[in-house]
Amino acid sequence: MEKIPVGILGATGMVGQQYIALLANHPWFEVRYVAASPRSAGKVYQEAVGGRWNATRGDLGGPNSPAVASLTVEDANDVSRAMAAVKRGDLAFVFSALEMEKDEIKHLEERYAAAGIPVVSNASANRWTGDVPMLIAEVNPDHADIIPIQKKNRGWDKGFIAVKPNCSIQSYMTPLWALLQAGYEVQRIIVSTLQAISGAGYPGVPSLDIIDNIVPFIGGEEEKTEQEPLKILGSITGNSFTNAAGPAISAHCNRVPVIDGHTACVSLEFGAKKPSIDEIKRIWTSFKALPQELDLPMAPKQPIIIREEPNRPQPRKDRDKDKGMAVSVGRLRPCNVFDFRFVAVSHNTVRGAAGGGILNAELLKAKGYLG
Amino acid sequence: MEKIPVGILGATGMVGQQYIALLANHPWFEVRYVAASPRSAGKVYQEAVGGRWNATRGDLGGPNSPAVASLTVEDANDVSRAMAAVKRGDLAFVFSALEMEKDEIKHLEERYAAAGIPVVSNASANRWTGDVPMLIAEVNPDHADIIPIQKKNRGWDKGFIAVKPNCSIQSYMTPLWALLQAGYEVQRIIVSTLQAISGAGYPGVPSLDIIDNIVPFIGGEEEKTEQEPLKILGSITGNSFTNAAGPAISAHCNRVPVIDGHTACVSLEFGAKKPSIDEIKRIWTSFKALPQELDLPMAPKQPIIIREEPNRPQPRKDRDKDKGMAVSVGRLRPCNVFDFRFVAVSHNTVRGAAGGGILNAELLKAKGYLG
Amino acid sequence: MEKIPVGILGATGMVGQQYIALLANHPWFEVRYVAASPRSAGKVYQEAVGGRWNATRGDLGGPNSPAVASLTVEDANDVSRAMAAVKRGDLAFVFSALEMEKDEIKHLEERYAAAGIPVVSNASANRWTGDVPMLIAEVNPDHADIIPIQKKNRGWDKGFIAVKPNCSIQSYMTPLWALLQAGYEVQRIIVSTLQAISGAGYPGVPSLDIIDNIVPFIGGEEEKTEQEPLKILGSITGNSFTNAAGPAISAHCNRVPVIDGHTACVSLEFGAKKPSIDEIKRIWTSFKALPQELDLPMAPKQPIIIREEPNRPQPRKDRDKDKGMAVSVGRLRPCNVFDFRFVAVSHNTVRGAAGGGILNAELLKAKGYLG
Amino acid sequence: MEKIPVGILGATGMVGQQYIALLANHPWFEVRYVAASPRSAGKVYQEAVGGRWNATRGDLGGPNSPAVASLTVEDANDVSRAMAAVKRGDLAFVFSALEMEKDEIKHLEERYAAAGIPVVSNASANRWTGDVPMLIAEVNPDHADIIPIQKKNRGWDKGFIAVKPNCSIQSYMTPLWALLQAGYEVQRIIVSTLQAISGAGYPGVPSLDIIDNIVPFIGGEEEKTEQEPLKILGSITGNSFTNAAGPAISAHCNRVPVIDGHTACVSLEFGAKKPSIDEIKRIWTSFKALPQELDLPMAPKQPIIIREEPNRPQPRKDRDKDKGMAVSVGRLRPCNVFDFRFVAVSHNTVRGAAGGGILNAELLKAKGYLG
Repeated sequence: MEKIPVGILGATGMVGQQYIALLANHPWFEVRYVAASPRSAGKVYQEAVGGRWNATRGDLGGPNSPAVASLTVEDANDVSRAMAAVKRGDLAFVFSALEMEKDEIKHLEERYAAAGIPVVSNASANRWTGDVPMLIAEVNPDHADIIPIQKKNRGWDKGFIAVKPNCSIQSYMTPLWALLQAGYEVQRIIVSTLQAISGAGYPGVPSLDIIDNIVPFIGGEEEKTEQEPLKILGSITGNSFTNAAGPAISAHCNRVPVIDGHTACVSLEFGAKKPSIDEIKRIWTSFKALPQELDLPMAPKQPIIIREEPNRPQPRKDRDKDKGMAVSVGRLRPCNVFDFRFVAVSHNTVRGAAGGGILNAELLKAKGYLG
Repeated sequence: MEKIPVGILGATGMVGQQYIALLANHPWFEVRYVAASPRSAGKVYQEAVGGRWNATRGDLGGPNSPAVASLTVEDANDVSRAMAAVKRGDLAFVFSALEMEKDEIKHLEERYAAAGIPVVSNASANRWTGDVPMLIAEVNPDHADIIPIQKKNRGWDKGFIAVKPNCSIQSYMTPLWALLQAGYEVQRIIVSTLQAISGAGYPGVPSLDIIDNIVPFIGGEEEKTEQEPLKILGSITGNSFTNAAGPAISAHCNRVPVIDGHTACVSLEFGAKKPSIDEIKRIWTSFKALPQELDLPMAPKQPIIIREEPNRPQPRKDRDKDKGMAVSVGRLRPCNVFDFRFVAVSHNTVRGAAGGGILNAELLKAKGYLG
Repeated sequence: MEKIPVGILGATGMVGQQYIALLANHPWFEVRYVAASPRSAGKVYQEAVGGRWNATRGDLGGPNSPAVASLTVEDANDVSRAMAAVKRGDLAFVFSALEMEKDEIKHLEERYAAAGIPVVSNASANRWTGDVPMLIAEVNPDHADIIPIQKKNRGWDKGFIAVKPNCSIQSYMTPLWALLQAGYEVQRIIVSTLQAISGAGYPGVPSLDIIDNIVPFIGGEEEKTEQEPLKILGSITGNSFTNAAGPAISAHCNRVPVIDGHTACVSLEFGAKKPSIDEIKRIWTSFKALPQELDLPMAPKQPIIIREEPNRPQPRKDRDKDKGMAVSVGRLRPCNVFDFRFVAVSHNTVRGAAGGGILNAELLKAKGYLG
Repeated sequence: MEKIPVGILGATGMVGQQYIALLANHPWFEVRYVAASPRSAGKVYQEAVGGRWNATRGDLGGPNSPAVASLTVEDANDVSRAMAAVKRGDLAFVFSALEMEKDEIKHLEERYAAAGIPVVSNASANRWTGDVPMLIAEVNPDHADIIPIQKKNRGWDKGFIAVKPNCSIQSYMTPLWALLQAGYEVQRIIVSTLQAISGAGYPGVPSLDIIDNIVPFIGGEEEKTEQEPLKILGSITGNSFTNAAGPAISAHCNRVPVIDGHTACVSLEFGAKKPSIDEIKRIWTSFKALPQELDLPMAPKQPIIIREEPNRPQPRKDRDKDKGMAVSVGRLRPCNVFDFRFVAVSHNTVRGAAGGGILNAELLKAKGYLG
């Protein structure tokens, strides 16, 4: 099978670099187009990235890998360059890891889509656009089916936009979904996150703020953590999504001195029907979803890994499980105030960013939305 | 005024060292007796501590300070040595920072008390002994009044035991108490703590476990965090304490790579009567208690400091406020699930350990229980 | 004695903040004038600093201290504002902690001096100006005596410029000087420094570059480390300084994940006359210089503290010694290649920056150069 | 080809775990025997390791990998168990990662060898035994040829001992050797190392000693760093090794808060014949040795990788290069005091420990010494 040529918008940034690293030997996709800010445009990729390469797995493809090192960086604002790449067969769709003002990103992603280029995005700009699916491949793959409606709404021919949610919810959304799907309503969640510094990009968090310290605040993060699950758990009504009514979520988001891997301490309250701890473990251990059924290349074999040690999961020790795509959970125990509580860890720049984006693209491809 | 000669049991350990540091220039107390394990006994203090000096404020009295450097370390198990010190006027009471098996500590503290030597303890061994007060000087100073009952219960003449609670609750117990005292019932609390490594003593947490990592578990800590507040908020009934009925507390305790300073992310649910955010701020800002009224030397001028910046309090930047004795709170905001949430920071080895112990001793002295 | 009113140029930056903190209760000087970039000008100091307060000792005066919180920040480029402050008795001289392009700083410091306002600077801009003294108060206090020559050279009446050297040399220059002064020539030095992140200012070093990492490069630092000692050890010849001929210095400068405190690993080769290790210890222990003789307020009682433990000095444990102004040395031992080697630690933002600047000003005052 | 069954002595320790991880999919060797202290003996491997698994690459085989999880841990002191394993075809040779007293290890390794079981060791115990080769596969592979002499000396039939040197020299010994081999004598070296915490094993360095700190001392490390190169560069004379006469090495060894990866700052002085910087780069870039010629599975394709960026190599970003087996060098520049200086990084628990041991075993196998 010939590989599908893909592009990366925001290719020189933190998440863009992670896309380059994770796509280095991808069986379906091949990076043939990279775009970034006008400042980087015209440079070869390796030079544009310079000393700022921060993708976290040193053994994966880096900026010097022959495949991408010599690609010329295009100006991401210049959609006509991408259209020319489509014409010459070097681009089928783009991953968006743009780092600009939210409004600019929203508008730019729409321009790509309008130009016939599908956009699989990591950015938050279009997450709340009514006809744009916010996908976690294991949770709401059926939300992709709004794409024909989106195209019709916009009058777009081939292009469309699909996004992924914020990295802060990645570690517990799949465990939560597994419980919901098994018939257990969850009414209320109080969650504290301990989030890695890579989530803030580069240069991101100054070291003077985080060594021998934690920062109990991340701008906009608590709102995303509380609201995005409701869209993901919602449904298509007419031309757009309707949010789920619950669960109610309260989030405390903290930045901690960890390179990669977000941890969440979760307390949850079920509805009238409450599973036992053994039942929860059974549900999580046996959970598989569409990406596993389709055997998508980036899909973890087992989406939820349960750790039985009293002090696990931990970000440094569990973030890389199954290519960084599995969620590790542990410390499942009764909660003094709600019903149960547990700890969940996932890799924020892999599962929670570039890896999640790639898995979404694989899902969209398998569903026939990417040609 | 001549200073009261005091002793430190467990003087070479982490908390014992902090006592030495904080008492270096104390206006009332003077360290004249140090005791530790048989291994250290017979050495001069400076030599016994050796390279393990870890008290955290480098400018305070250290193991080389003339006052303590040349004290000879006694065997803490040998109460007769302490009795001899009492006789020669070198010891009026002891601070217990013992690091042994819980049962050993409980028994040993009782032996000191039985020998006529009051014990002001940091250890957890006697926290749940029915007639032993667990004191936070600003919260339940009246619990000290069980001391005559305790003496009577045991048939002790001069000796008694008073303890302080676990460091993990120190940051939010005073804010909680201020609200309760102002007439607002609190029904439920879900709290996640991000606790400093110094709380585990020395050598304590291996660096391989905590650099670029967090550990979402601290043995026994969640139970203490959930249960100790109920005794502190309880009352004397007959010969012993009766726990308060609430609030119900659920705690997630995490170890983070911070040297000193425990952070707590707190969500709380009031009873029927709910204060506004402005009302809470007013209550906290104006809160003073008996230690402030008595102007005790170790008491913070303002027990609760409110930070208005969106990203404060932070452990490195706020732990040292007012000699490390003030609690800093911030991020007071509505909670999506309960009523309100906030973040609190306090210095775990000062306010949460040695400083809190010294303040308790000052309170007991002021109340006439220390001669 | 009425306090001398002083100003701080670059008052909102990292070093500027440290000046504010260290001068909080200074017996001679009082901060009455603060200036920074046009962006901060017009704001009250507390507001201008905002969340960026990073001065490292939490118990010292902060941006909220009554003395400075409500000072209005002036535009540092507008020397006329400073001249007006001089006129109304609010300014006698300025500390320069400017963070701009080197050429701009050089020119601006000269404008202040030309306007009759002495400048005691931390910046590197005027370090190699021929008639500007680069002072370490214990090492070359006599270099201050070029000030009358400098004034004459420039035609300045009251103003002049005096600077301090780079923080990277602070830990070993005093020990080196003590040996030279005792008559032992040092021919060659190879030094590796392990420098704290606070040396890079704020935001400075991105956390993604330094957690679980070191960076073996600091721009311009090795050159400064190798060359500045030669001016400090030089002498006044006619209208300007002549560098010393040696020692030859080779420096490897590394950034390490330490908040404050630079460490240096030093190997040195003496000339023909070589002291014994005991002799070196005797020299260092007994070393006192003019700041000690004059009992200057910021001067450490003992400039060089020898640690005998095998694993000391260490930055976190030794940086705060004697108000952060003493240098701690240890591990003095023979070198396999040169004669001797040792480890030295000093506090880079205190002794190596603001504290060193204040001590220089105290020296200049004591010598009669500051009115 | 059927895989050779190998054993690991000290299998539950830090380096032992790294052997398990790195041998997970080895083409030649298969772990079929694990031994540790009597405390672990009798437990299955997974249970014996418990929560202490610290091998650093999360995606490699862990204690739960089917291959090793259910192996029963033997008592390493009981050589008869290993002999039984040899008999039943489950053991051909052992890797020694023993953590005991040096004398015990020396004696125990000799007992294995005497029992006919070759020992490829990481321990320091036999490094200075006269007829034991201390191998870096790229530097002194010919030293393996003492093995027949060693066997004859001892009267051993099949067994022998081969060791690897200390991890602290691994980063610069290959670059040094490449220069020597190219005909450039090196007379003197002054090196400062910044060593990772994993080098101290587990629990190893207490976090209270190393967060916001460095420790300028590692017991015994400087001596090893200075002396071991002389044996490696030495030659076989009669029945044992004769050390090389030089270079003279002076080492400052520091512990820094880095998980994995030792960094060395090296200044070196050549003899009369001095290469240019370009010549050095050419030598390093083109350097290949026997492991590369033999295409050994663990051998890095390019043993020395030159980084041209001004701030590289760095431990977190470069330690994993080429399976963690390549040495990264950079900052090659003239030295003010000697001739040249540079920075080198290598992965201490891979290249400097288990990976280096495996490569040594591969070399010994290829040379016919392992059957």
